[in-house]
Amino acid sequence: MSARRKFWGWGFEGQGPTAAEAETLRRMTGARFGGLPEPLAVPQAAEFDLAAPRLRPPDSLAGLCSAESADRLAHAMGQSYADIARAFLRRVPHYPDLVAWPETADDVARLLDWADEGGAAVVPFGGGTSVCGGVEPDVGPDYPAVVSLDLSRMNRVREIEPRDRCALIEAGARGPEFEAALKPAGLTLRHFPQSFELATLGGMIVTRSGGHFAMLHTHIDEFVQSVEMVTPRGRITTRRLPGSGAGPQPERLVCGSEGILGIVTAAWMRLQSVPVYRASATVRFDGFEPGAEAVRQLARSGLNPANCRLLDPGEALMNGVGDGRSALLVLGFESADHAQDARLARALEICAEGDGESRGGTGSPRGKGGERGKGGAGRDAAADAWRQAFLRMPFYREVLVPHGVIVDTFETACTWSAFPDFHRRVTAGIREAIRRTTGRDGEITCRFSHVYPDGPAPYYTLYAASTPERMLEHWREIKLAANELVVGGGGTVTHHHGVGRDHRPSGYDRERPDVYAEMLTAAKRAADPGSLLNPGVLIGRRGGVLAGDPE
Amino acid sequence: MSARRKFWGWGFEGQGPTAAEAETLRRMTGARFGGLPEPLAVPQAAEFDLAAPRLRPPDSLAGLCSAESADRLAHAMGQSYADIARAFLRRVPHYPDLVAWPETADDVARLLDWADEGGAAVVPFGGGTSVCGGVEPDVGPDYPAVVSLDLSRMNRVREIEPRDRCALIEAGARGPEFEAALKPAGLTLRHFPQSFELATLGGMIVTRSGGHFAMLHTHIDEFVQSVEMVTPRGRITTRRLPGSGAGPQPERLVCGSEGILGIVTAAWMRLQSVPVYRASATVRFDGFEPGAEAVRQLARSGLNPANCRLLDPGEALMNGVGDGRSALLVLGFESADHAQDARLARALEICAEGDGESRGGTGSPRGKGGERGKGGAGRDAAADAWRQAFLRMPFYREVLVPHGVIVDTFETACTWSAFPDFHRRVTAGIREAIRRTTGRDGEITCRFSHVYPDGPAPYYTLYAASTPERMLEHWREIKLAANELVVGGGGTVTHHHGVGRDHRPSGYDRERPDVYAEMLTAAKRAADPGSLLNPGVLIGRRGGVLAGDPE
Repeated sequence: MSARRKFWGWGFEGQGPTAAEAETLRRMTGARFGGLPEPLAVPQAAEFDLAAPRLRPPDSLAGLCSAESADRLAHAMGQSYADIARAFLRRVPHYPDLVAWPETADDVARLLDWADEGGAAVVPFGGGTSVCGGVEPDVGPDYPAVVSLDLSRMNRVREIEPRDRCALIEAGARGPEFEAALKPAGLTLRHFPQSFELATLGGMIVTRSGGHFAMLHTHIDEFVQSVEMVTPRGRITTRRLPGSGAGPQPERLVCGSEGILGIVTAAWMRLQSVPVYRASATVRFDGFEPGAEAVRQLARSGLNPANCRLLDPGEALMNGVGDGRSALLVLGFESADHAQDARLARALEICAEGDGESRGGTGSPRGKGGERGKGGAGRDAAADAWRQAFLRMPFYREVLVPHGVIVDTFETACTWSAFPDFHRRVTAGIREAIRRTTGRDGEITCRFSHVYPDGPAPYYTLYAASTPERMLEHWREIKLAANELVVGGGGTVTHHHGVGRDHRPSGYDRERPDVYAEMLTAAKRAADPGSLLNPGVLIGRRGGVLAGDPE
Repeated sequence: MSARRKFWGWGFEGQGPTAAEAETLRRMTGARFGGLPEPLAVPQAAEFDLAAPRLRPPDSLAGLCSAESADRLAHAMGQSYADIARAFLRRVPHYPDLVAWPETADDVARLLDWADEGGAAVVPFGGGTSVCGGVEPDVGPDYPAVVSLDLSRMNRVREIEPRDRCALIEAGARGPEFEAALKPAGLTLRHFPQSFELATLGGMIVTRSGGHFAMLHTHIDEFVQSVEMVTPRGRITTRRLPGSGAGPQPERLVCGSEGILGIVTAAWMRLQSVPVYRASATVRFDGFEPGAEAVRQLARSGLNPANCRLLDPGEALMNGVGDGRSALLVLGFESADHAQDARLARALEICAEGDGESRGGTGSPRGKGGERGKGGAGRDAAADAWRQAFLRMPFYREVLVPHGVIVDTFETACTWSAFPDFHRRVTAGIREAIRRTTGRDGEITCRFSHVYPDGPAPYYTLYAASTPERMLEHWREIKLAANELVVGGGGTVTHHHGVGRDHRPSGYDRERPDVYAEMLTAAKRAADPGSLLNPGVLIGRRGGVLAGDPE
């Protein structure tokens, strides 16, 4: 069995930011906010006094289960800001009575049968990287007990079919695990959410994770060829088909189901060949709006860049790749089959028509002041710096949270026609919410994580200086403001983070049509008549309203 | 109001094949089968003695309804082989008591309320082009009456949003209607099913219609940005979003729902700019298998041709573009933004590696014996001939059916790894079924209508010589064999024709997981508690088992 997850931050026990990273972060943040309050100490498992488990597994399942406090604590929360803040504040209000690690789909079925008999709720747990309360055992008062079902022992790549470029991957396999198994065949899922190191395939599927590709294959949905799912009513195995028109696509009901319909145990996934040809460049724009307009033109061009991340001036600055005035577009093409230089060149032409200045890249930029690329590798220093920062980011919160700094993200999507006004309202509204709650100015930055011909997926990051004592309360106000601004403004409460429990009343419940919610609820009842599975997620009653709510 | 549909064949009253087309078809088919029996006469509405309608609309709805026999007859069937055969045989077992033409979503809601009060079944009717019994009012004995709900008066393009390249189109708009309204804005849906002239947007959406693009946007699903649907429980309007990760995507439950969850009244559709750059070619292969292997390589190349239709030797011959020994690949690229010659050239390289000989096109083919393209238009005579035949084909059946000729199609999808064996079994099995039933050899041909990195969508056409008296019985045996061969062999019962009533017991009911069927049934009950909508389609009890079944 692999190492235990940290219950108070990103990664496994023993992992964390380097001393240098922590020092830089504290210095920069302190400089921005005029000093930082004394930090809270790192929490220790022994400081938490958990209530005795309310149920015991039968002997036949005991070998798959643990009632150890450290295991229960490690399955008490996900990786949202509120989760880490609550860990540092020694407030962990919900934890499972038991953690179970099934090793086969049969184990899952037996565990569900047993939970059903006792009326226990079952909360599926993949990599535990939910940032919206998706894995928190906050199931309300109707359940005598709750079991966290950890899929991490089901982590094999069971079969590879090179002719179809597909593989059957178990749901508990983490990104690096399945990629390592696919590599010898020259294949890759090429789906790299920021949570890639920890997140599991099953978790990615049921949360409609957003990955590497900025266009076309934005969510994991498109890569799901078929799924195996265990429901309390029985098993579902959908056919391996490249496409079908037979009724509503079953896999599409599983994608985004967040564990309420069944436990995905494995999936046949459509893979990519490892790219050989790459072409990339960065393009600077005088502000976010002209950058967004160029990206809109790019998105409808049919060039379909793999990478098309537009950073606003603040985001570029924060990531060490900007001057605070220019927006930066990180643009990349890739292929296992043919050179991408001509596509990059045409993309840079489109950017130049929008007054973008290109740097790097292997194409033939004609933008004003554009420098010719360094050629060869098709890589770009600014893009690399951004990517490096992106992957280390999950570690940074544990440095800032104990100082009472609020650092959070939220992501959405809206149409191009709505975007300019939407963006002004969201950024102004968040600045106002930060001032109102913390009494001080904060920061909000934006990038496009994915783009579509009909609209962008803006990803917002916010920073605010609170205090260790009040940060959770302040976060809650800001989070509610964000849900309201995004959903009230016509966007979606989440483009790829999921709904979980935190995006419910003020977000998802308002966004989805009521009759659709009734259909989804009915479908859940059919598959899970006892309502065992992840109660409070997506539909039905939940315990608190937000993770930070007073209990 | 537009002209009335023919109840016994393709198109509107007055339309049909030209005399020359009919003559050629009869001559060629007669030559193949050694003469044709005397034909049945074209049926006349007056020959059908319909039972009196079992319900009357209230005064408030009477203006939207008709109980005329000609209208009821024109809504009695779709466009399957069995439908046309039954019309010629003067056997039309199911017809609506009433036809209603709502003009607004409010009208639809009022009609559903009224049907609900009387317990009448409601069968939505778009263009009436179903080839699987999707619009036939064969609702079984549990309903006191049945209303055909014809959406054709809701045919406007309500709004165009050029910045998002989207339009709000009413569900009853036929292909040529909405394309004409989009054209002044330089926009197009570019979704051209063979039924394009008659099929309506709503029908395309709920049957997951397959269109123009051979790759990427194969089904209409990807173009549906949001839907408006009236259910007996209330209305659903999904948000206009370019993408979202908030729960299972609501639009995906509507796509493929075939009218059982609600009546789609309008949808915001993602459009394309009219292509400016085109590059196309045809490539000949020594047989279907080497062609299929080249297409497999193409499908994973990331070139994503708009057109990638591989015709087997028989299909190429039938369409007048082959010698009966070579398979023909019709390959096309298109873009509104940039030249496609380099992509075509790379595609032809891939084909040449698979020993394909290319003709025409604007690329730089290097296949052995390949001729350099004629340049300019990027068009190709063989591709044009095929396309022309494709669009006229729906008219041809009314020439052959009265002579007792069975001409039918079925389409499926399977993985590349399964395809060679699957294809051998299907073609051998159909030849055997034709011999067994008709006592004579028939023909079965195949093309790929769409292709994916993980598999093709083979589209089969069969021809058999029966007699007017026995053609329906023979067709039924062959159809059941096809369902069995396709679904028993691991394929899907339909790639884009839909499930309807004809693809149920031996097809869809076997293909979809049982627990999924229970979820879909539950979702339907939530939206349509009285089970008014299209009973017998997709789920639940249906009347006959197949359209040709003895009653």
